[in-house]
Amino acid sequence: MPQSSLLAALSALVPLARLPRTGWVMSGVAAPESIAAHAHGVSLLALALGPRVEPALDVDRAVALAAVHDAPEALLTDLPRTASKLLPAGAKRAAEQAAAQALLPPLSDLAQARFDEYLAEETREARFTRLCDKLHMGVMLVAYTRAGTRGLEEFGASLAALDCSEFSPCEALQEELLSAYRELRS
Amino acid sequence: MPQSSLLAALSALVPLARLPRTGWVMSGVAAPESIAAHAHGVSLLALALGPRVEPALDVDRAVALAAVHDAPEALLTDLPRTASKLLPAGAKRAAEQAAAQALLPPLSDLAQARFDEYLAEETREARFTRLCDKLHMGVMLVAYTRAGTRGLEEFGASLAALDCSEFSPCEALQEELLSAYRELRS
Amino acid sequence: MPQSSLLAALSALVPLARLPRTGWVMSGVAAPESIAAHAHGVSLLALALGPRVEPALDVDRAVALAAVHDAPEALLTDLPRTASKLLPAGAKRAAEQAAAQALLPPLSDLAQARFDEYLAEETREARFTRLCDKLHMGVMLVAYTRAGTRGLEEFGASLAALDCSEFSPCEALQEELLSAYRELRS
Amino acid sequence: MPQSSLLAALSALVPLARLPRTGWVMSGVAAPESIAAHAHGVSLLALALGPRVEPALDVDRAVALAAVHDAPEALLTDLPRTASKLLPAGAKRAAEQAAAQALLPPLSDLAQARFDEYLAEETREARFTRLCDKLHMGVMLVAYTRAGTRGLEEFGASLAALDCSEFSPCEALQEELLSAYRELRS
Amino acid sequence: MPQSSLLAALSALVPLARLPRTGWVMSGVAAPESIAAHAHGVSLLALALGPRVEPALDVDRAVALAAVHDAPEALLTDLPRTASKLLPAGAKRAAEQAAAQALLPPLSDLAQARFDEYLAEETREARFTRLCDKLHMGVMLVAYTRAGTRGLEEFGASLAALDCSEFSPCEALQEELLSAYRELRS
Amino acid sequence: MPQSSLLAALSALVPLARLPRTGWVMSGVAAPESIAAHAHGVSLLALALGPRVEPALDVDRAVALAAVHDAPEALLTDLPRTASKLLPAGAKRAAEQAAAQALLPPLSDLAQARFDEYLAEETREARFTRLCDKLHMGVMLVAYTRAGTRGLEEFGASLAALDCSEFSPCEALQEELLSAYRELRS
Repeated sequence: MPQSSLLAALSALVPLARLPRTGWVMSGVAAPESIAAHAHGVSLLALALGPRVEPALDVDRAVALAAVHDAPEALLTDLPRTASKLLPAGAKRAAEQAAAQALLPPLSDLAQARFDEYLAEETREARFTRLCDKLHMGVMLVAYTRAGTRGLEEFGASLAALDCSEFSPCEALQEELLSAYRELRS
Repeated sequence: MPQSSLLAALSALVPLARLPRTGWVMSGVAAPESIAAHAHGVSLLALALGPRVEPALDVDRAVALAAVHDAPEALLTDLPRTASKLLPAGAKRAAEQAAAQALLPPLSDLAQARFDEYLAEETREARFTRLCDKLHMGVMLVAYTRAGTRGLEEFGASLAALDCSEFSPCEALQEELLSAYRELRS
Repeated sequence: MPQSSLLAALSALVPLARLPRTGWVMSGVAAPESIAAHAHGVSLLALALGPRVEPALDVDRAVALAAVHDAPEALLTDLPRTASKLLPAGAKRAAEQAAAQALLPPLSDLAQARFDEYLAEETREARFTRLCDKLHMGVMLVAYTRAGTRGLEEFGASLAALDCSEFSPCEALQEELLSAYRELRS
Repeated sequence: MPQSSLLAALSALVPLARLPRTGWVMSGVAAPESIAAHAHGVSLLALALGPRVEPALDVDRAVALAAVHDAPEALLTDLPRTASKLLPAGAKRAAEQAAAQALLPPLSDLAQARFDEYLAEETREARFTRLCDKLHMGVMLVAYTRAGTRGLEEFGASLAALDCSEFSPCEALQEELLSAYRELRS
Repeated sequence: MPQSSLLAALSALVPLARLPRTGWVMSGVAAPESIAAHAHGVSLLALALGPRVEPALDVDRAVALAAVHDAPEALLTDLPRTASKLLPAGAKRAAEQAAAQALLPPLSDLAQARFDEYLAEETREARFTRLCDKLHMGVMLVAYTRAGTRGLEEFGASLAALDCSEFSPCEALQEELLSAYRELRS
Repeated sequence: MPQSSLLAALSALVPLARLPRTGWVMSGVAAPESIAAHAHGVSLLALALGPRVEPALDVDRAVALAAVHDAPEALLTDLPRTASKLLPAGAKRAAEQAAAQALLPPLSDLAQARFDEYLAEETREARFTRLCDKLHMGVMLVAYTRAGTRGLEEFGASLAALDCSEFSPCEALQEELLSAYRELRS
């Protein structure tokens, strides 16, 4: 790989900092977090919840899984649920894999390996990080609701439907999020 | 259909006014036009170019085709070329059809009929409106370039590659757009 | 008309996609729809309500009326009610006519004809489209209120005061909008 | 005047902080200064240039003139040149006077007096502040051009056409602005 | 001082129009006022409240104090309370003095003198303007709350804690602001 | 620590997704990346460059260092160089430590440990991540310049002055960034 491709590879990921998380935009949040800010929030959640999990996780690796987990969206954009439901079964996942294959090997084999691990959901770290991804939506749901946004009931329902049973610290946060959200809405 | 579903149907289309045209965002345009503003621009292009076409088109119908042509994006969002290339052949088109089917009949059968006509590309009005869709990207390319945005070469290449031969007024505008773009870049 | 003026004419309308609807800005809506997105919303309303009107309207023409109805604002900007009340009687309307005269003939005679028809309010299509213009404000009022914006009582009062009696489908939507708005505020 | 009207009067001026300077928006500046930020910039210009003027001005009063000079735009919005040219002779000025009359006496007689002085252009402070208003456009023209915005030639022409001969420090700044603008464009 | 430094001095203050008031951003206000717009609001408050103060103030000078009072933030940015509490005692004030010293003398000795007076809090005009600074936060608190923002309780508490006893018109406005805020929250 | 404090701790970090990187704002970038998006970009850089470093680094830990390295800015905000130069020697660093102490232990001891390691610059991973922090500024400099922003020379000078000699892959990227930046500016 010529050195000259590294800047190209990094530049291809810059849209993550520009693209907003689509679901919030559609619901009328005026200035929602970017995809990159979301991925960062998932990393912080992994750092917060990871050390509470038993048996112990490799938390640093979970943080790295969080950092790459939405990298394909630099090409695919953040497809909201309304969009992915309209695609053929497996199409979104296949597109993510193809996008990752285009974006991550030019960064490093490690970046690609971390993404593959995330997508496969076979390791505990991968399944844990996936829950952090969903719980970060809950953190932002509470933040937007606290700041006055209304009409986010679908996000609340999605948070309530999340199965966190494998990791009890995730379950505890889920409950705290739902409780805070409901109190703000009452 | 109960009358009460009309507001729900109209509300489902409000995201068109909130969602930005994704390709410009990815390229760093700070405040690009929304999908709705794009659709409006295509309507204006149809009004501008339509009366110049021979033999005569039904221009009002072309304007209506323009108004609905991106309606599915209220569910699908504006998938940039980088995204649609990653989906299976035909998946984007099928998703658009399914989205239209969910969104437009609650508005009116006419809205659905206009969308179907657009997608089928069988009438001259439909093919003409499709060119207006692409040419509007060219109008914005010139506008963003004039305002100082750089790095939009892909959009310029895409404009240059457009086959406008069926409608000579479209071809004339394409040439004018390319000429203006090139002069701004020199 | 030299071909070279078409791009100039189209470029003169680009501000419609950039300028926000002023009334919402003044009331604190952080990212309201642009004038162009509003015009698109009016077109969609015409497609939704038009086919329900009896006797039948020329709905496609109404869509075209909607597409051009705010074109003068590319020069005049969206003057809020607080502004137009401060201008001499008839001044806003005269300015709109002059702006249209500068902007639309370079597009096409048809564009100008559609604007003239809209302004004259003599055809049923023109009066219907004018109601769609006002009702679109109501659709956005409900959308902004659902998303948490408050303090929009003036818009609610203006919606309630609208006389939709000529077109019963407009009247039905007005009632649905008012009912939804009031429920969201209770 | 009941004390309770003071908050109402201050709230009526809040749109100055929300409304962008329209001319820049129309030219594609993505996030231009608000009307309020402009007025503040004019105040700073008065503080910078005022002490250099001979014979001496009442600079503090000029700062106060700057603070109120665009207050009517809280009702009227910032009408760009393209708009005011379409209004009858004197209509914009009359509207500004009426808007000021509605907005400023509830603040204080002094606020109204400062606005009246500004509009009358009879004192040297008023004519000086009016030049500061135009020169602030020049400061922002240089700032936006330095940051990469292009297509602002009309603003440059307007700056060049300004007659600053009554106040030589204004003339010196005008020259410096034009020189900087031209160098940035070369 | 060479004339050529005036544009540099003015350009160094342009960030005031770009930088948002940080506290609102942190609380989720999507598009808060800029530092410059805040300074302008303080000027308007000085014009509103100043003439009501007895014995009489030099209101024009107070307006000039308001215009420069946050000028250092063009270098320092708007440090929220959470930030200044983390700095050593006196560090923020010393930084403001140093920033003013870098920014204001190139404008004029008068600009520097007005800033020094503001910071010293020895004159009644300076102490009055400082209250206007805090009360403007209250005006915006009411405006953002009216527009639907929630979660601003800290700002309300800060407004309630303000000691306005030296200037009874300030005290009256404080009460009106608190009353309006509480009513909006009930 | 009661479980109930976890949401409070996570909410305290949400401002990272809202606060823009200040330096770009001051230079006129209309919609720069947030602090959170920057931290994410640093994580990706660590994943890209880390595996190229010899002897091998613990790349996952470097990613975690990147994730927390700017966490204090949730309280302190992103102080630009112009601000930190005005603070007493060591004041910014001490404030960051105090902010981290307030923010991170409620997340987890690990989060705090990663921050402490970053700040101490004693491990190779910490020094490497610090370079990634600076190089991410270079990636965005190229991105903003490519998109048409001008006037960013200070950022270019800062990138050129960076000492990357400890990690040759960082040095290689620095050269590639400078070369791309210079070519875009020629």
